[in-house]
Amino acid sequence: MTFEFGSLFRPRLPAAAAAPFAGYPKYYFVGGNNDADTVPTKKLGEIAKAVLEREGSILALYGVGHGPQGYLPLRQFIAKTLHQKAALACHVDEILVTSGSLQALDLVNNLFLEPGDTVLAEEASYGGAVSRLKALGANVIGIDMDEDGMRMDHLRQVLADLKRHGIRPKFIYTIPTVQNPSGTVLTTARRLELLEIAELFEIPIFEDDCYADLLWEGERPPAIRALDKTGRVIYCGSFSKLIAPGFRVGYIVADWRIIAQILPTKKDGGSGALEQMVLAEFAASEFDQHVAKLSGVLRDKCQVMADALEEHFGTTAEFAMPKGGIFIWITLPDIVNTSELAKAALAEGVEINPGAEWVVDPATGKNRMRLCFASPSKQQIRDGVKLLAEICHRETGVPVRSANVARP
Amino acid sequence: MTFEFGSLFRPRLPAAAAAPFAGYPKYYFVGGNNDADTVPTKKLGEIAKAVLEREGSILALYGVGHGPQGYLPLRQFIAKTLHQKAALACHVDEILVTSGSLQALDLVNNLFLEPGDTVLAEEASYGGAVSRLKALGANVIGIDMDEDGMRMDHLRQVLADLKRHGIRPKFIYTIPTVQNPSGTVLTTARRLELLEIAELFEIPIFEDDCYADLLWEGERPPAIRALDKTGRVIYCGSFSKLIAPGFRVGYIVADWRIIAQILPTKKDGGSGALEQMVLAEFAASEFDQHVAKLSGVLRDKCQVMADALEEHFGTTAEFAMPKGGIFIWITLPDIVNTSELAKAALAEGVEINPGAEWVVDPATGKNRMRLCFASPSKQQIRDGVKLLAEICHRETGVPVRSANVARP
Repeated sequence: MTFEFGSLFRPRLPAAAAAPFAGYPKYYFVGGNNDADTVPTKKLGEIAKAVLEREGSILALYGVGHGPQGYLPLRQFIAKTLHQKAALACHVDEILVTSGSLQALDLVNNLFLEPGDTVLAEEASYGGAVSRLKALGANVIGIDMDEDGMRMDHLRQVLADLKRHGIRPKFIYTIPTVQNPSGTVLTTARRLELLEIAELFEIPIFEDDCYADLLWEGERPPAIRALDKTGRVIYCGSFSKLIAPGFRVGYIVADWRIIAQILPTKKDGGSGALEQMVLAEFAASEFDQHVAKLSGVLRDKCQVMADALEEHFGTTAEFAMPKGGIFIWITLPDIVNTSELAKAALAEGVEINPGAEWVVDPATGKNRMRLCFASPSKQQIRDGVKLLAEICHRETGVPVRSANVARP
Repeated sequence: MTFEFGSLFRPRLPAAAAAPFAGYPKYYFVGGNNDADTVPTKKLGEIAKAVLEREGSILALYGVGHGPQGYLPLRQFIAKTLHQKAALACHVDEILVTSGSLQALDLVNNLFLEPGDTVLAEEASYGGAVSRLKALGANVIGIDMDEDGMRMDHLRQVLADLKRHGIRPKFIYTIPTVQNPSGTVLTTARRLELLEIAELFEIPIFEDDCYADLLWEGERPPAIRALDKTGRVIYCGSFSKLIAPGFRVGYIVADWRIIAQILPTKKDGGSGALEQMVLAEFAASEFDQHVAKLSGVLRDKCQVMADALEEHFGTTAEFAMPKGGIFIWITLPDIVNTSELAKAALAEGVEINPGAEWVVDPATGKNRMRLCFASPSKQQIRDGVKLLAEICHRETGVPVRSANVARP
């Protein structure tokens, strides 16, 4: 007879998966999947062979003998590239390699948060970050944004309100460069103002810079951590979006005192070493040129998606062209509920991120959606957006016109 | 001015790391590090190149397009090898690849445990498992052991006592095959009795089989999960000890209803895919022959350590020869406190696991220690055990004789 576990599970587990994974839908516009043709398989293969033959025996040691902070040549590369690209100077002891930036989020959240704590974030923000914060019982407050990212006037006002109520937030979570989902870039002036405000209210900053390398328009500003003189900024980054998400390699950069406090909570025996070894070797010789190529491919696909949106949704779909990254953040007319649209679309093979899952207050995302363009082919983007517009028209009456032709 | 985080950290964090990793001590007898010469670097290199060139572009997809349960060929290999070696039949949908078996422990613990819950385990057990359970606020109860592993008479008695007090444990955590640290193997008769008792008291079993492939003496018994007809057993295993701990690849095998409930709590974007791909390809053609070779090397090193213990500690060090694995569990005379000994030894370059950290009730481990033999060379084993005996004599007066010569 089958054993009944039910009453033994702890309370408040998330809903169980309905069925094993059965493949992606035909038009998959969600998630961080990357352009498959751009994965440098041949070069990675050569490098994996070389690095394994040369020093593969260090895999016999947890942390490959370099300790729990990660493979030393990878940390050296991270230090070098952050210095060059983000004006961020750091010592290898101030870097902790993580299993993707998702683990970085978990480790930093775990350092600060108990149920009831308050955290600030951009009003529209990475769904995986917002859901993690809420699952931990945090009170997440969204800060308004404009075309330059988080609005400092609103941040100041929210912090002043909280202070009047005796509430000191645990940190400000921000994605300043190629913000997810808006694609905006926080200006250097705002970064400096953010630090001034954080100083005034005595708040740390958690800077998530996962997409910063995929900026294709304008200069990359200095990291917020690079501009800070107080050590209040905990920075994280990732290689998942730059090489391939199958590589689970991210990192935290923070003062040693913070790394020291995180280390005993990272109880995983170290992050995967082969990936670190291959990435370090690849990055040392190929990184800039690979990222430039990838950015070009993404920029092209972004344009294809923007064109398809314009053709099939017309002025019904409002969006700002992203300055980099892998997604477009779209506002539809008020009458559209994108959570409903997402269900109808999925039934016909089009998957989208409904806005409610990508904002702090679900109501602000009701008529918004995020569409990712890195993984689908250009033809899939064209066909999928066309189909999405048809479904949207059928379900909601908008868009009224597509491809300059009134819909029946 | 440096920002002061102190009061913002959550309460009850573990103590911060004192300093960045500064290398292993000369005689490193702790942890799961493996024999470096046995890592098949050349073969792994060839395989990594082949698999990346052939299908590296799937790394562009989270879960390489095979979903959150892991790379399909690896799950197919796990299903095949468990069927052959442990009489355990399972479908690929009943397998969840994890980032080492440490993540498997975290996921299963998270499924069941709240502070105050009760868990049973062998009295001497894996330090990383016991510390995790205690950190979650679980009340861990140790079950007595003998040369055949966990004693069923004691288990029955403990469960009856708990039942009288209205306590139903959340699960029994057991390492039945090459138990850590004792090296014992639970007999098939006891496995059947364990299932009978679990049925009687309506308790699930969490079977940790990480070392089972490294058995070099006697037949490997069927997995407890293989003998069960109720689906109450959650099984986990690992490749870390078989290929290299730098590969963070473990797995859970359980009914789909359990996997389904764990999946939404595994929020890491999938475990490292390159390692899974390389391991699957390596395992398909090389696994048995590699494990046989590794077992031979470990058995030799185990004998060297046993001989060194006999030479330098004489009858002062009591231990049973392990039937496999990478460690020897040693009992010293009552007057020795191995936690003190470990400190004195570390100061002279010898690191050991004091028994108190490898048991449920620290008092039962006071005069015990675990020594790992996989990673150090034979000469390091000989020299390190000799030095450890000298330090032990100096600190505690025992052993009185070493190498048949009375110590001064």
